[in-house]
Amino acid sequence: MTPRVREILNGYAGENAGVLTNLARMLNHGTLGGTGKMVILPVDQGFEHGPGRSFAPNEPAYDPHYHFEMGIDAGCNAYAAPLGFLMGGAAEFAGEIPLILKLNNRDSLMEEKDPDQAVTGSVKDALRLGCVGVGYTIYPGSAHRMEMYRTLREIAAEAKAHGLAMVVWSYPRGSGLSKEGETAIDVAAYAAQIAAQMGAHIIKVKPPTAHIEQKAAQDVYLKNKVPIETLADRVRHVVQSAFNGRRILIFSGGPKGEDSAVLGEVRAIRDGGGFGSIIGRNSFQRPRSDALKLLRTVMDIYAGKTQ
Amino acid sequence: MTPRVREILNGYAGENAGVLTNLARMLNHGTLGGTGKMVILPVDQGFEHGPGRSFAPNEPAYDPHYHFEMGIDAGCNAYAAPLGFLMGGAAEFAGEIPLILKLNNRDSLMEEKDPDQAVTGSVKDALRLGCVGVGYTIYPGSAHRMEMYRTLREIAAEAKAHGLAMVVWSYPRGSGLSKEGETAIDVAAYAAQIAAQMGAHIIKVKPPTAHIEQKAAQDVYLKNKVPIETLADRVRHVVQSAFNGRRILIFSGGPKGEDSAVLGEVRAIRDGGGFGSIIGRNSFQRPRSDALKLLRTVMDIYAGKTQ
Amino acid sequence: MTPRVREILNGYAGENAGVLTNLARMLNHGTLGGTGKMVILPVDQGFEHGPGRSFAPNEPAYDPHYHFEMGIDAGCNAYAAPLGFLMGGAAEFAGEIPLILKLNNRDSLMEEKDPDQAVTGSVKDALRLGCVGVGYTIYPGSAHRMEMYRTLREIAAEAKAHGLAMVVWSYPRGSGLSKEGETAIDVAAYAAQIAAQMGAHIIKVKPPTAHIEQKAAQDVYLKNKVPIETLADRVRHVVQSAFNGRRILIFSGGPKGEDSAVLGEVRAIRDGGGFGSIIGRNSFQRPRSDALKLLRTVMDIYAGKTQ
Amino acid sequence: MTPRVREILNGYAGENAGVLTNLARMLNHGTLGGTGKMVILPVDQGFEHGPGRSFAPNEPAYDPHYHFEMGIDAGCNAYAAPLGFLMGGAAEFAGEIPLILKLNNRDSLMEEKDPDQAVTGSVKDALRLGCVGVGYTIYPGSAHRMEMYRTLREIAAEAKAHGLAMVVWSYPRGSGLSKEGETAIDVAAYAAQIAAQMGAHIIKVKPPTAHIEQKAAQDVYLKNKVPIETLADRVRHVVQSAFNGRRILIFSGGPKGEDSAVLGEVRAIRDGGGFGSIIGRNSFQRPRSDALKLLRTVMDIYAGKTQ
Amino acid sequence: MTPRVREILNGYAGENAGVLTNLARMLNHGTLGGTGKMVILPVDQGFEHGPGRSFAPNEPAYDPHYHFEMGIDAGCNAYAAPLGFLMGGAAEFAGEIPLILKLNNRDSLMEEKDPDQAVTGSVKDALRLGCVGVGYTIYPGSAHRMEMYRTLREIAAEAKAHGLAMVVWSYPRGSGLSKEGETAIDVAAYAAQIAAQMGAHIIKVKPPTAHIEQKAAQDVYLKNKVPIETLADRVRHVVQSAFNGRRILIFSGGPKGEDSAVLGEVRAIRDGGGFGSIIGRNSFQRPRSDALKLLRTVMDIYAGKTQ
Repeated sequence: MTPRVREILNGYAGENAGVLTNLARMLNHGTLGGTGKMVILPVDQGFEHGPGRSFAPNEPAYDPHYHFEMGIDAGCNAYAAPLGFLMGGAAEFAGEIPLILKLNNRDSLMEEKDPDQAVTGSVKDALRLGCVGVGYTIYPGSAHRMEMYRTLREIAAEAKAHGLAMVVWSYPRGSGLSKEGETAIDVAAYAAQIAAQMGAHIIKVKPPTAHIEQKAAQDVYLKNKVPIETLADRVRHVVQSAFNGRRILIFSGGPKGEDSAVLGEVRAIRDGGGFGSIIGRNSFQRPRSDALKLLRTVMDIYAGKTQ
Repeated sequence: MTPRVREILNGYAGENAGVLTNLARMLNHGTLGGTGKMVILPVDQGFEHGPGRSFAPNEPAYDPHYHFEMGIDAGCNAYAAPLGFLMGGAAEFAGEIPLILKLNNRDSLMEEKDPDQAVTGSVKDALRLGCVGVGYTIYPGSAHRMEMYRTLREIAAEAKAHGLAMVVWSYPRGSGLSKEGETAIDVAAYAAQIAAQMGAHIIKVKPPTAHIEQKAAQDVYLKNKVPIETLADRVRHVVQSAFNGRRILIFSGGPKGEDSAVLGEVRAIRDGGGFGSIIGRNSFQRPRSDALKLLRTVMDIYAGKTQ
Repeated sequence: MTPRVREILNGYAGENAGVLTNLARMLNHGTLGGTGKMVILPVDQGFEHGPGRSFAPNEPAYDPHYHFEMGIDAGCNAYAAPLGFLMGGAAEFAGEIPLILKLNNRDSLMEEKDPDQAVTGSVKDALRLGCVGVGYTIYPGSAHRMEMYRTLREIAAEAKAHGLAMVVWSYPRGSGLSKEGETAIDVAAYAAQIAAQMGAHIIKVKPPTAHIEQKAAQDVYLKNKVPIETLADRVRHVVQSAFNGRRILIFSGGPKGEDSAVLGEVRAIRDGGGFGSIIGRNSFQRPRSDALKLLRTVMDIYAGKTQ
Repeated sequence: MTPRVREILNGYAGENAGVLTNLARMLNHGTLGGTGKMVILPVDQGFEHGPGRSFAPNEPAYDPHYHFEMGIDAGCNAYAAPLGFLMGGAAEFAGEIPLILKLNNRDSLMEEKDPDQAVTGSVKDALRLGCVGVGYTIYPGSAHRMEMYRTLREIAAEAKAHGLAMVVWSYPRGSGLSKEGETAIDVAAYAAQIAAQMGAHIIKVKPPTAHIEQKAAQDVYLKNKVPIETLADRVRHVVQSAFNGRRILIFSGGPKGEDSAVLGEVRAIRDGGGFGSIIGRNSFQRPRSDALKLLRTVMDIYAGKTQ
Repeated sequence: MTPRVREILNGYAGENAGVLTNLARMLNHGTLGGTGKMVILPVDQGFEHGPGRSFAPNEPAYDPHYHFEMGIDAGCNAYAAPLGFLMGGAAEFAGEIPLILKLNNRDSLMEEKDPDQAVTGSVKDALRLGCVGVGYTIYPGSAHRMEMYRTLREIAAEAKAHGLAMVVWSYPRGSGLSKEGETAIDVAAYAAQIAAQMGAHIIKVKPPTAHIEQKAAQDVYLKNKVPIETLADRVRHVVQSAFNGRRILIFSGGPKGEDSAVLGEVRAIRDGGGFGSIIGRNSFQRPRSDALKLLRTVMDIYAGKTQ
């Protein structure tokens, strides 16, 4: 156990030994094991965007085995996916990579102003599949958020009671926010705070912009001169908003982009004190060798082996 | 156990022995037993369309015994029906054909823009009736889909815990889609993916057209040159979308049609790598002898005994 | 046990001995015991229409004892009523007539386009009151029907598990239907089918008219020349739609009418192969002696003792 | 046990001994003990109308002890109140007066066209506080009535299983009725019938007017010459509608009024065969000595000690 | 145990020993221990208003440890916060200050006319974190209030059964009220009454204005000359409305203000017989030393050590 991992676990004092063990399993696994940084492979786009849009650019990715192998070979800290994709390999790859079962999902066959998600798996499924944790998405800003919080509470309580880590995707969306507001700095910080207040162990947010969405927030940010100019500044503010760095906070990679753009974002996350990234489309929509190379560089940046 | 059946079961590694046993019972039963192909007889039209519309063309079909005898005599892999129809013969025909209890249904006495189904049976009913599996319909594209997914999750978990196979009818409908979009290739592939991600063992979809419904999908299909010209091409894409062939994917037969049309579709399903058909109205709306003859030819095509 | 009662019970093969026993208790009780025909006394109009409208025409009927005595003295196969009315005599008249607890009800203090009912009793209440079965109303055609089916499923499963018979009042109503459509022949047949598919043991529908409500049904009825001209024809079609006569199907008596009209309807039900009648208002809104005389003639018709 | 109390209890034959015991406790308690008549003190106006409107006219009434003492000193048969008010004295006054826990309430901080109530206490609370029964309000005529009936069913079943008496406040309100219709004679009779059919042991309604609300009822009342001219006539009709006098039916006292008006109403209730009154605002909004005097006269009228 | 604390506990006679113990723990803890007065530190603004708006004015407050230390060092009677903030220090500061877990919360990323809250923690969480009580917010005046009351009932019953104190934040809001009405004297008194009737042990309301919101209340307040001119008068009326002083009633501090304004309000609460204050933003949005000084003066006023 490295001092940094011990320090991170101290932020979860009072949680049961099962939870601490599973957090340690992720922090100590793979290329970044022991550094306190994490890169997680998430593959829920088949459900969220459809199989064609997700996997046609790299056909082997239709196969659930492909992603297990990618996560293992790239040395990711964990692999997160919905029930079907984990069922499609958990037995074959048992013990080779920490698994996170994503417990809710939505398809995009209907676009609602106020999006919701359906629970598609359970804590019991996660235990049966040998997972270290469960994932759950909330949409702060949606009219459905209250119900999403209620369900998260129930799931988080059950997960913790069974020693599983609780990972929350906190993605502001819905009629309470402008499109620009979904990634606004005040909203991203708020999203991280909500997940932390609800008891999340690991929080995933999108990299924020310098836009401030809420009038009441604009006044406070301005008056108190909160630094939000660079992405590193903004990452720092969101980390602070997740209990002053006492919660593992990672950033999503977003749609497939140029390597340089991806790496630039990673450097800003590192500079701002973020705990790492969760990189899906930029992993599986590239040819396998390109993806492995990109992920290696990302990990080198987080590990401090390269600039 | 033939190598092909073993190979199919390998796709379900990690599922409990009860589930594997019941999948094997279907794959090894009837005329197509051991081939890895399936023809299932489904009779839920009495509930879905009404008794007159369904059975007046062939009066003996009002009687629940008729369908048990048809499934047995035709050598189908399984017979699927709602609670009442299975209650109406499960004891008399015990052990003669694998049964699937269809757990939700809707009548057509009211047409909604966003259709829903009601749960009309339970996993306990299926066990009490000696079934090998349970069936459940989802309507991706309907405003009720989230609630349908939630209920499916609960039912699938209970079914699997009791060793039953989970069969999902994934029928895109509702205000999220155009009429043409209900059978669009991107939507059909998406429907198969959703069912697979939710943990279905057997997935039933409608044969897709070459229409692409969603703008975001059109761009990807075009750019990546996904072949969708022939029905066989499209079947292949949907099979790929059901975890690259690791899930049993069968196609519905649709309304009663000419024998040649039915058989043409079956050939395309075979050529595209589909696992088989589920043929209702084309079975029971013909005189019994005609139906037996048609089903025999369908099975011969799947078994490779005829072109 | 007469051969006809044995034959009827065979239609319920696979149901547990408790259910078969309670069905036999009704079939073997009273004047029509052993004939395979049934006349049931139902009194839920106090709840459904109000006490003044129901009982002012025959004041003794305000008293719950009155109806127990009527059912017993007339030799009905069973007496069906809501919780309060059964509570008001089940102990005093214990063992004298089979009881059916009507588990849901609606008042008419508010008229909705899409009517619903509230559950007002339970299977446990039925057991505690010594009943042989429970009753439940569905409104196919109402926007609430899906929820009504879901509740029926739960209640039917619980009732059967406790050995009680499940009686379903299948009354098409609501915005999916025209007023005329509520008693259309295609709709009545559909209503009987839905109840049968949901696992009802005894089904109660209204006598159908020759109107065909649904366009899709009109085509099929015409093309297949389904006979629906006389009431006897229509009764025959509905009996057929209830699993070809394998389910006990009885017809409601409707509002108080002339004796001759009531008896004419009963003859048509007999001729069409119906299993009997459920006669409420035509029993308790007449003076007691008139009611007993009318019921005696009805039973004579069903028993074949008179034309 | 007086013959009249025995006679009343006979109306509840079949209920368990706990229920009969608790009904007897109320019927045998206080000034009217053994007469078969009841005067109950209800104090839920703090919740229903607010503390200022309820208690400012008589400041000692802000204190929960005040009402226990009033009920005891006036010799009421029972004291009914919400959870907080009973918590505020049940231990101090244990065993001195039968208590009824009112299980649902609504505040008047928002006026809805279709009013509802919230469940604010439980059967377990009632048992823990030493109550003899629980109270529940329904609003026949409101769009929420179906849900209220469903909840009442659950509560009544639980209460009876634990030997508690079920008291139902049946107060027609909501968009199904005109303002005048809320106290119409047909509606009041209907309200009493619904409560009785749902299994209530004690029913509380408002004194009805001679207005007839529903067209269908008007015809029947007229044709059958139902006497509704005097309040005593109308009380008699409502008593008849509550299972011909087999259910304890009491009338609410309404807003604070002149002594003479209150007493006139009580005489009519007595003359019509009502079982008594439930008198809240006319008790606690007067100075204590005036209230005690008024209640004594009310009880004398019911007991036949004065005209 | 001081006589005053004993007197306060007497108001809760009949509650179990666990509840009395936990109420005593708060009343006997910290600077005001034994005086019968309380100052509670609440920090839920991170969830309710967002982290930037709440903590940017005093950056150390982003850290959950900061608030534990503030509550301990200031000698508050208790510290109240949502799940995440208590998880962030309950183990490290175990036994140093009584904790109240706030069980529901709402964010301000969407503004609804009728606000609601989501349950974000449980009684089990409170027990696991070593809390003395749980907190719950209701919004009388909101269309969601009925559902909030129902949930409060369930939570309060569970909390009390486990020996925890029930603290209710009763904050009138929603479409039933004007903006001014949210703090009107009649509404504040009503809010206190509702919480008391629902069984709250400790009630938190906002300091009321002299505005009277409801017409029906205006008449009664005027006619009965209820004194509401000064804040002390109004505090006295609200205390009276909380069962005549038998319930611990405390007042919220509101947004950060000048020291003099805060202290003026505290003096009025003291003069009107209020039990104390719950002071959040006026604690943690000042530099630590300023906050400690202000809280010391507040406590001196309540303790009678200063004017």
